[in-house]
Amino acid sequence: MSCMTKNLQELVKALGDVRGFDRLLQKVWEAKRRLVMKGKKAPCLVRGERGIVFPARFCGTALITVVSATPGKVICEMKVEEAHTNKMGTLHGGMIATLVDNISTMALLFTERGVPGVSVDMNIAYMSPAKLGEDILITAHILKQGKTLAFTSVDLTNKVTGKIIAQGRHTKHLGN
Amino acid sequence: MSCMTKNLQELVKALGDVRGFDRLLQKVWEAKRRLVMKGKKAPCLVRGERGIVFPARFCGTALITVVSATPGKVICEMKVEEAHTNKMGTLHGGMIATLVDNISTMALLFTERGVPGVSVDMNIAYMSPAKLGEDILITAHILKQGKTLAFTSVDLTNKVTGKIIAQGRHTKHLGN
Amino acid sequence: MSCMTKNLQELVKALGDVRGFDRLLQKVWEAKRRLVMKGKKAPCLVRGERGIVFPARFCGTALITVVSATPGKVICEMKVEEAHTNKMGTLHGGMIATLVDNISTMALLFTERGVPGVSVDMNIAYMSPAKLGEDILITAHILKQGKTLAFTSVDLTNKVTGKIIAQGRHTKHLGN
Amino acid sequence: MSCMTKNLQELVKALGDVRGFDRLLQKVWEAKRRLVMKGKKAPCLVRGERGIVFPARFCGTALITVVSATPGKVICEMKVEEAHTNKMGTLHGGMIATLVDNISTMALLFTERGVPGVSVDMNIAYMSPAKLGEDILITAHILKQGKTLAFTSVDLTNKVTGKIIAQGRHTKHLGN
Repeated sequence: MSCMTKNLQELVKALGDVRGFDRLLQKVWEAKRRLVMKGKKAPCLVRGERGIVFPARFCGTALITVVSATPGKVICEMKVEEAHTNKMGTLHGGMIATLVDNISTMALLFTERGVPGVSVDMNIAYMSPAKLGEDILITAHILKQGKTLAFTSVDLTNKVTGKIIAQGRHTKHLGN
Repeated sequence: MSCMTKNLQELVKALGDVRGFDRLLQKVWEAKRRLVMKGKKAPCLVRGERGIVFPARFCGTALITVVSATPGKVICEMKVEEAHTNKMGTLHGGMIATLVDNISTMALLFTERGVPGVSVDMNIAYMSPAKLGEDILITAHILKQGKTLAFTSVDLTNKVTGKIIAQGRHTKHLGN
Repeated sequence: MSCMTKNLQELVKALGDVRGFDRLLQKVWEAKRRLVMKGKKAPCLVRGERGIVFPARFCGTALITVVSATPGKVICEMKVEEAHTNKMGTLHGGMIATLVDNISTMALLFTERGVPGVSVDMNIAYMSPAKLGEDILITAHILKQGKTLAFTSVDLTNKVTGKIIAQGRHTKHLGN
Repeated sequence: MSCMTKNLQELVKALGDVRGFDRLLQKVWEAKRRLVMKGKKAPCLVRGERGIVFPARFCGTALITVVSATPGKVICEMKVEEAHTNKMGTLHGGMIATLVDNISTMALLFTERGVPGVSVDMNIAYMSPAKLGEDILITAHILKQGKTLAFTSVDLTNKVTGKIIAQGRHTKHLGN
């Protein structure tokens, strides 16, 4: 069994009693099965090698692949599709913010503590547009995971050129 | 003809030669007709009394009503629906960021200059969760509209209690 | 005895056992006396009608007058002096940040709870330069004061024209 | 002649006609002489091996040493002194903001273009307090230097442990 699947199962156990997560993680496995069975894109997924659903239900069809996930750093990949773009045909600022939010939360879930937390502050610097069809990397670092607060940083870059698209920072409250 | 419809038509003319906007504003009128004809929710709309489509194509079904729009200040209203929520059943942080992005841009479009600009920096403070079914107000102010940069601030509040949900600031580059 | 002096004395009592504050507030009264006696500028003061020292020891000589202070909103006034300017002869961005930090903290001290908290996140949008000799108003609002976190917003404006110079937001952790 | 001294002289030439810089850079050389002659701390300096004055005139006595400076990345070092601390005896949030502002600007000056720009947006996440006497590193990266806008990121870390103290991002307008 791969490390990531094992981590995922541990996540399932660890988060099993957290409100709402049961349902989420049940959906993870269902979605995984669906993905394997149908071999096609599912709406609103953050899918690793073995499939992880991520809960941005309001976004349409973001198929995000986990490239690597270690405690403190998660790298995902995504292709910019029509549905993610703004009127200028580039990756929507709100979609970028959603990726900063979700992938940084994912990084927090991939730690020993595994608490997603609640958003306190988030900021994004928009540096270059990402065009339709572009493959992008989303790299989330945990800057600090304290008792009550966690600080994360997220870079969006072009997969081929490495050019930076945006950088976000996300502060979350982990509970008292 | 109401003031807002007139503004909208001027917007259509003014933005008619901006790349991509043609198509957008054509959709505005189509959507308006559809809304009037069918009297039901359309996906990804920012709809005023007389109907305005707003281009957050990646969000699912946000029906946003323009409550008031004056140069410098736009107030919109929205009900938090299932599709906008996160795993905790509250308005998703990425959806809040998208609203900050879009409604502040809308405020810039409702000025004499009427240029949407390109995002430079955006930040959001998340203060209270907005629950499923809650009616929220989104109030965008233009803090400064200079030659090359515009600064806007957006408050999300509970429509009934006035309680603040989030506050964002959005800096946009308007061109040289 | 004026309301503000009374508040100040209550602050002295309430904060008397907080580490470091004793010393600070002792300095407040000393500085007040000095101000009254000598009628001239003291370094690093936030001085109201009756004198309040504010602890930005690293800044040189900022004489800040409290214009009004109510729970939730504090307005201060300051003249931009040579020592506060950058190489371009305008109010230094770091000085603006310091004012956002200190005056928002002052607003938190002027509440019933009266806890200064610890900085979590701060951001500033710089909109117009403030020139040497300009009188500026610094208006701090408390957006939300929760159990563990407080959110504040600070506007810097030209006192005469009302033109906005900068807007900051400051999130502080109040303890568990 | 060392590389940094040469760079400095080029800076002098390049910035010689920029308003206010003349005076600044004259002070640089004077301060350098003073530093060499007296071998002691000068107020408000960013001093390299050979001495660079940096214009935070409102701060008291920050002696900042340039550890390394390459196009795109500048590392400085500073000891937290009494004058930089807040009421809790730790590095003041406004002082941290000033360092983010100045050292990121310094990184922009150490590029071929060498334009300091004007602040647009700045944000700081405060992660751990830096105590009196602590040696800290301030590392500024240029994320993107475009035609009209530059984006920089600044980390403050403990020199010995590497622990992160704060992270800031600074967006500047470079002119049209």
